[in-house]
Amino acid sequence: MIKAGIVGFRGYSGAELIQILERHGAATVYLMEHRADAGDRPTPRGAGGPARIPATAEAAGAAGLDVVFLATPPEVSMELAPGFLEAGAKVIDLSGAFRLRTVDNYTRWYKEPHTQPELLASAVYGLPELNRAPIAGAKLISNPGCYPTAASLAIAPLVEAGVVDRGAGIVCDAKSGVSGAGRKPSLKTSFCEVTENFSAYSILEHRHVAEVLLNTGITEPEFSFSAQLIPVHRGILETIYFRAAGVPSAAALVELYEKRYAGEPFVRIYDAGKSPDLLSVARTNFCDIGVTLHAATGRAVVVAAIDNLGKGAAGQAVQNMNLAFGLPETQGLL
Amino acid sequence: MIKAGIVGFRGYSGAELIQILERHGAATVYLMEHRADAGDRPTPRGAGGPARIPATAEAAGAAGLDVVFLATPPEVSMELAPGFLEAGAKVIDLSGAFRLRTVDNYTRWYKEPHTQPELLASAVYGLPELNRAPIAGAKLISNPGCYPTAASLAIAPLVEAGVVDRGAGIVCDAKSGVSGAGRKPSLKTSFCEVTENFSAYSILEHRHVAEVLLNTGITEPEFSFSAQLIPVHRGILETIYFRAAGVPSAAALVELYEKRYAGEPFVRIYDAGKSPDLLSVARTNFCDIGVTLHAATGRAVVVAAIDNLGKGAAGQAVQNMNLAFGLPETQGLL
Amino acid sequence: MIKAGIVGFRGYSGAELIQILERHGAATVYLMEHRADAGDRPTPRGAGGPARIPATAEAAGAAGLDVVFLATPPEVSMELAPGFLEAGAKVIDLSGAFRLRTVDNYTRWYKEPHTQPELLASAVYGLPELNRAPIAGAKLISNPGCYPTAASLAIAPLVEAGVVDRGAGIVCDAKSGVSGAGRKPSLKTSFCEVTENFSAYSILEHRHVAEVLLNTGITEPEFSFSAQLIPVHRGILETIYFRAAGVPSAAALVELYEKRYAGEPFVRIYDAGKSPDLLSVARTNFCDIGVTLHAATGRAVVVAAIDNLGKGAAGQAVQNMNLAFGLPETQGLL
Amino acid sequence: MIKAGIVGFRGYSGAELIQILERHGAATVYLMEHRADAGDRPTPRGAGGPARIPATAEAAGAAGLDVVFLATPPEVSMELAPGFLEAGAKVIDLSGAFRLRTVDNYTRWYKEPHTQPELLASAVYGLPELNRAPIAGAKLISNPGCYPTAASLAIAPLVEAGVVDRGAGIVCDAKSGVSGAGRKPSLKTSFCEVTENFSAYSILEHRHVAEVLLNTGITEPEFSFSAQLIPVHRGILETIYFRAAGVPSAAALVELYEKRYAGEPFVRIYDAGKSPDLLSVARTNFCDIGVTLHAATGRAVVVAAIDNLGKGAAGQAVQNMNLAFGLPETQGLL
Repeated sequence: MIKAGIVGFRGYSGAELIQILERHGAATVYLMEHRADAGDRPTPRGAGGPARIPATAEAAGAAGLDVVFLATPPEVSMELAPGFLEAGAKVIDLSGAFRLRTVDNYTRWYKEPHTQPELLASAVYGLPELNRAPIAGAKLISNPGCYPTAASLAIAPLVEAGVVDRGAGIVCDAKSGVSGAGRKPSLKTSFCEVTENFSAYSILEHRHVAEVLLNTGITEPEFSFSAQLIPVHRGILETIYFRAAGVPSAAALVELYEKRYAGEPFVRIYDAGKSPDLLSVARTNFCDIGVTLHAATGRAVVVAAIDNLGKGAAGQAVQNMNLAFGLPETQGLL
Repeated sequence: MIKAGIVGFRGYSGAELIQILERHGAATVYLMEHRADAGDRPTPRGAGGPARIPATAEAAGAAGLDVVFLATPPEVSMELAPGFLEAGAKVIDLSGAFRLRTVDNYTRWYKEPHTQPELLASAVYGLPELNRAPIAGAKLISNPGCYPTAASLAIAPLVEAGVVDRGAGIVCDAKSGVSGAGRKPSLKTSFCEVTENFSAYSILEHRHVAEVLLNTGITEPEFSFSAQLIPVHRGILETIYFRAAGVPSAAALVELYEKRYAGEPFVRIYDAGKSPDLLSVARTNFCDIGVTLHAATGRAVVVAAIDNLGKGAAGQAVQNMNLAFGLPETQGLL
Repeated sequence: MIKAGIVGFRGYSGAELIQILERHGAATVYLMEHRADAGDRPTPRGAGGPARIPATAEAAGAAGLDVVFLATPPEVSMELAPGFLEAGAKVIDLSGAFRLRTVDNYTRWYKEPHTQPELLASAVYGLPELNRAPIAGAKLISNPGCYPTAASLAIAPLVEAGVVDRGAGIVCDAKSGVSGAGRKPSLKTSFCEVTENFSAYSILEHRHVAEVLLNTGITEPEFSFSAQLIPVHRGILETIYFRAAGVPSAAALVELYEKRYAGEPFVRIYDAGKSPDLLSVARTNFCDIGVTLHAATGRAVVVAAIDNLGKGAAGQAVQNMNLAFGLPETQGLL
Repeated sequence: MIKAGIVGFRGYSGAELIQILERHGAATVYLMEHRADAGDRPTPRGAGGPARIPATAEAAGAAGLDVVFLATPPEVSMELAPGFLEAGAKVIDLSGAFRLRTVDNYTRWYKEPHTQPELLASAVYGLPELNRAPIAGAKLISNPGCYPTAASLAIAPLVEAGVVDRGAGIVCDAKSGVSGAGRKPSLKTSFCEVTENFSAYSILEHRHVAEVLLNTGITEPEFSFSAQLIPVHRGILETIYFRAAGVPSAAALVELYEKRYAGEPFVRIYDAGKSPDLLSVARTNFCDIGVTLHAATGRAVVVAAIDNLGKGAAGQAVQNMNLAFGLPETQGLL
């Protein structure tokens, strides 16, 4: 059994990790208390639940943890990761702390200094479908952002295959459920501000853009990205627009995706003209992709959907754990 | 007092018309029974409500109706409009029956024949901010579609001013609340299919595209449009992407919009980088517009929001009624 | 024109007051800044809006305010009311500070001392349908709580008429939309905690019970009350159970209510066996009441619905203002 | 492996059955096509899914089905059950067709004749916590209604223990998510009629009352039940009011429940004064129970929560299958 600690287990990604790992079959969960956020939900009597230990390197060492999941803000992840690594655990970080490869890139997009430049350089980016090989040997795995997971899986095959008219640019209109903003109360995520509403934010300046650029090879001037808040708990749907070059039909685009993701257990492609919705992927680790093409003019739309707490966070983190520990990649995730 | 009949008063646009007209001050409402759809909501005892008459030309003539609002499907509007016009009433049609100017254009987008080609040719398109003058003298006013109202008000000023890099195309990613699909029960609009969901539909082939092309002068190959369903009752938000040409700053775009819509009571512009959400316009006749520009690369995003039942349907229909009868344009709408 | 100040105008009741008063016709609104809660929503350019002045007695005096609405917590209302009264304004308080008549009663239910016992003794309880006469001459009007408004209007006529089997008790199962909890962010009112959820709170110990007892004459041992949170923005529905004594039919109960509320503009009764829902009263000042009776056994259910921001807060506050200033009681409210 | 057929697999209970059984480990699923309801959701390419066979006795026999789940309306269940039984399969019926023991009782509450009186007499009521023994040998298991499951589990122990003041009656105020109404489109379950709404229905006359009476031994004159629609997909919360007799404290009530349900894997009790909400039981087979008591007056409130698609339908059906086939009762359900 893999001994797996979770810091930030009261948050939405943390709670999802607990749920997945408790059914995983090869993991024992340790809840690591970092700050008393007083946000426990009501529980029945006698509900035992996983062991609770402090979120410290000492406790991780004493418990013999094999892996620690950090479902924490970037600054907390930077603070805690070194200790857990020294204590002999692998670290899978769900924050943005270790995703952007260089201090310069991090500072530009996160507007704050990076306190662990060496760890940043050594971190392995955990998007298996685009970067599987190095995950097996990684000590520090940086779990991708939710928006970039869907956008990169949708866009990378197009760019690789050279079927995008780069001059016309790529538009990614991204929408997310509210759990993507975390569990800390704020006016923006208050029920009465969100229900019966829909709003755009971080237009053209979301820090997740940096990951998409790294993952796909497109450049910032080519890429327009807006984020929007859907009044739902969970789920991401991204509508991606581009001008196709040298593509005879929608079926050819479908084929392109199917070849690229042949054998991938967590990417599913739809028939031309069909597309997934949030319910297609809710509570799963799938990324679903649908394609529409107006062949005469080349206008193309790709709809990509994930569960932001699944493939966009906790599900993908467990997929990375499976790879890092030599388990079947899908264990606990189907 | 203007005697105003409403056909389709049990639908969402019809109900909104009742609500606006009952507070309007210069209108008396007649509910015109066309089909028993058995969808009345529970009502308290003694609730009088407006007079009810049949949806026939005879009844309209007998009641001396000055105007009839058709909140009906296109085929019903085509069937009913001639009789009401002959009975001496103006007709304000909220369907798509009379929006596309020519039979060919209608047949192409609506996939069915047009039974009233002469009326189609004579209808006046009722988007006051782009076509105010002829509305005053019109007998048959074709109220714009909900999506095209927001898209056209956002895009037309950009095209007029020549600030769009036409070669890169314009993307309109449109989202609507569920009332836009009408009140007739269907699986697609059932609560359990919509709540906690978000889905795209009519990707690259929505018939509302035709109106946007007519209103803005852009061509179909330049325009990519997808519609999406938000799990809310009402409201439309459109995120519009284009490459700006010759625009030095976001402030310049704001100024462009302000000049174009100076004096318009129902178009409101936001500071650069700010944008409206659905709550900004809920239960109003406003179209709110916000602009973001990345000046160095020209990437630009315009967010336009309306209430699909307000400026997107009933509100705009009353605005047209006000213009057609020489009343203050804002009467009953502020 | 009545000069009307609003303290707490960024909250949901405060915002509702602004909306009602701006269409009222006989009131000029002053927004009174009390604390910077940083919660303004995005606004379009050039949105003028009402004058803003500090929430001080001096400012109220300088502006010549005729009335100040306090949409504030009880402790703020106790702090501010004396100054505004001395400055010559009437005060309509929407908090619980002045509802319970005596210091002892207040302390018991609100678990904190009352700092203005004299004002408490002189306050007039503003539930017009049960206590209309003294409102006209009142200087300090205590606006009823949302739950007690519906419960009292539903129960008082039954108790007055002696048709309740008191020994069997009365049950009030009350449900409210989330805006009843105010606009201050909290975990309990965060979107992801509320959506797809439904929860009970303050079971058998809600402080609003105290008001219902005062308004109806029933005693605490006779009354069981639970509050519950509906995942909607606004609206209250209360399902009230009792054993009817000496009532031959449901129609007789309907008649009882109709006689009691004959001529009341804001109470509406439904046919026997029918009942209102939240949409029946949304954005109105109505209290709608429906009755079901199983005549053979006497089991009876009354469903009462209000908008918690309308008749449950801002609407009723304006109704009280109308009465206090000799205006038509329904002005601005229909 | 148990070969398990599902009729009505496109409905919400049917879909839940598929999901549970596919992870169950000892069951192979067969989807049985009964009527083309054209309600399939979009699916990715290559999604294999379970085998599909006709919903006929012949097909059941040919496939060698061990059990057939009927997630169908009562009239369809009465039509299909005999054939499947003759074909040698056990039948677990999720409709109300076989719950009420006698034709008279069925006819009274369902207002239609019963076409299978012999089967009705032989059916075993599948609420394991109250009726476990006969389920093991049953051929036809009648799965309980959703409301009665929660109500009976909450009320039966109180009546058994004699702690209810029967003269004062028991009130059950029940609330359900919309999936309880099935997947067939109707105006009542349309998104725009449900969102931001909350409504009562079947006040004092819901046919589920009959089951609660049978399960608990209370009589109709003692029991007041109303159903209400929560704007959520799934979940039932019932608030039950009674006058406690001879109970010294809330803790004593907690103890009473704990003793009654000692060893039960799917009933969970909360500390006195605490109560579950819908999220406590979402997507589980648990029934959670919380108790509040005002000891001085005996007023008591029990909150019981289940997932209407879990313990209220598909989960409980699989629990019954486990019992009927000698499997561990919790298999596939934790």
